[in-house]
Amino acid sequence: MVMNVRGYAAHSVDSPLGLFSFVRRDPRANDVVIEILYAGVCHSDIHNVRNDWGNAKHPMVPGHEIIGRVTAVGAEVTRFQVGDAVGVGCMVDSCQHCKACAGGLEQYCENGNTLTYNDVDRHDGMTTHGGYSERIVVSDRFVVKVPQGLDLAAAAPLLCAGITTWSPLRHWKVGPGSKVAVVGLGGLGHMALKLAKALGADVTLFSRSPGKEDDARRLGADRVVISTDATQMQAVQGHFDLIIDTVPYVHDVNPYVATLALSGNLVLVGYLGPLEPAVNSAPLVLGRKSVAGSVIGGIAETQEMLDFCGQHGITSDIELIRMQEINEAYERMLQSDVKYRFVIDIASLRA
Amino acid sequence: MVMNVRGYAAHSVDSPLGLFSFVRRDPRANDVVIEILYAGVCHSDIHNVRNDWGNAKHPMVPGHEIIGRVTAVGAEVTRFQVGDAVGVGCMVDSCQHCKACAGGLEQYCENGNTLTYNDVDRHDGMTTHGGYSERIVVSDRFVVKVPQGLDLAAAAPLLCAGITTWSPLRHWKVGPGSKVAVVGLGGLGHMALKLAKALGADVTLFSRSPGKEDDARRLGADRVVISTDATQMQAVQGHFDLIIDTVPYVHDVNPYVATLALSGNLVLVGYLGPLEPAVNSAPLVLGRKSVAGSVIGGIAETQEMLDFCGQHGITSDIELIRMQEINEAYERMLQSDVKYRFVIDIASLRA
Repeated sequence: MVMNVRGYAAHSVDSPLGLFSFVRRDPRANDVVIEILYAGVCHSDIHNVRNDWGNAKHPMVPGHEIIGRVTAVGAEVTRFQVGDAVGVGCMVDSCQHCKACAGGLEQYCENGNTLTYNDVDRHDGMTTHGGYSERIVVSDRFVVKVPQGLDLAAAAPLLCAGITTWSPLRHWKVGPGSKVAVVGLGGLGHMALKLAKALGADVTLFSRSPGKEDDARRLGADRVVISTDATQMQAVQGHFDLIIDTVPYVHDVNPYVATLALSGNLVLVGYLGPLEPAVNSAPLVLGRKSVAGSVIGGIAETQEMLDFCGQHGITSDIELIRMQEINEAYERMLQSDVKYRFVIDIASLRA
Repeated sequence: MVMNVRGYAAHSVDSPLGLFSFVRRDPRANDVVIEILYAGVCHSDIHNVRNDWGNAKHPMVPGHEIIGRVTAVGAEVTRFQVGDAVGVGCMVDSCQHCKACAGGLEQYCENGNTLTYNDVDRHDGMTTHGGYSERIVVSDRFVVKVPQGLDLAAAAPLLCAGITTWSPLRHWKVGPGSKVAVVGLGGLGHMALKLAKALGADVTLFSRSPGKEDDARRLGADRVVISTDATQMQAVQGHFDLIIDTVPYVHDVNPYVATLALSGNLVLVGYLGPLEPAVNSAPLVLGRKSVAGSVIGGIAETQEMLDFCGQHGITSDIELIRMQEINEAYERMLQSDVKYRFVIDIASLRA
């Protein structure tokens, strides 16, 4: 039974996204078939479409913040039933036998996980296509349950922006009394504020420019520090246990390292590339500080994060758009003109 | 009662060290008076003497790897008795009330600890002078006991080289099954090999050149990886939980980061300055790795390390010299011509 699916794809690096019909695989025994309701729009969708990372395969159907309902399950699937509200994030498969996978850290699979789009299925060799589409077929191990009570559209960005900030908050053991700072107020940053605050931390936003105080406080920040203001930066020297740095481009991390407390960690979640200007090791050595990184999160951890969000009523702040508005949305994202995440109402694709 | 003491001092940046007479303070109620038997020669002694760090105060009596015997104690001292074999390391005081000091982390004292030499006593304003001398007077909180059975001369380097490598091994929880690598085989590196092995780790030495295999294995290494050999480096990609990087000059850490396992840490203990070429954040993010630093260790931790060395019969590999040979020793250290630490027999100063 061939499953024909409509979606929006980038047909080349520089063409606008447009309608695309393609085939999803026949469900395997451990597969879950999901009717997609909402798909969040991540900045990495633009990077992938435009081949910024050099591995683009077109046509490409982006989207890795997926919320939908189960419409069918394979014979071996026991955890999901037709009608369940479920989520799919950045990965749809991994080797399942390396040390990382065994430890629930599929995001660090030693044999390479299978990304939700712009990747190749490790079983049948088909190109993977993401959430800007009507339906998706995913191994049950990579499907998570959406707790009741969460707005399904606003929950979509939890699958990438949420877990990407949750994972380091948990790995570095943030809880009541922790002093956490967040660098950058975008899709990732606004989730970091919400999650850190709900975990009981004292939360600070670093921002390059004034004007974000009201929003930041509403989202969970106890204070905003303008990083271009030397006096404000001086006041938080040696202060933070953990800094979640969401900035997606090259930037000087030294001023933030200076604000870490003894044994504090600065964790990069948004930037891949050389750390320039050079990181100075002196404050690392003399304060046992570290500069680290983290990428998305494991599947069990993603479920934990969703359950936590269900308990605390946490979702993303979103602007709901129609599928047909995606190209305009990309342009606005490139100008940071979104508070704080676009989510596509996939019903618009069916209309 | 003025205590006149003879030592060897650098009288200026570029003069050889020579005989110097100075005064030690009258013992306070919590002081321990120590007749110095041995003083290790640390590479930082040369940096300090030659004002490489810009804060040299001459005349300067170096030495912060001190072993001696107690000859008198102040009225409030209860932990030490005349005749005890004791050690003094890099610090002789700290504020004693900040969060770091309260946590036994005097090396990170928020108000600045008092270094054993080239510093100023926080109570009487006198210049501190180190172990290249007959006697020293130190607050009992900064004196540690040397376990019975250790060779006293060979124990001296434990007070700096030992604790500097012990502290990160403990902080990053090295134990049986841990995979530890050490970069550089000098005073610090050879202690890192011994201590990591005794903690039960699988131990690797990174060396830039062949010829150190026999020594490395004798000191505790299970293998040696030649860091300039691409094939050997490739074979240890993603392998190590902890890398102790003892290299004291600027160097590229990226090849070592590549050999860290998931969630692994590279800890710099020998170099203060810009990390150039730039550290690439991609392997940090994609492997949850970190680049960190660590400096010496706390006093309780120093005692713990000495006790561990007593139990395991660990000391430094040393070359014992006379005080009068110190200038030649400095020249040889600058050519890495020492296996692996010079220790001064202070009896030569009294002769």
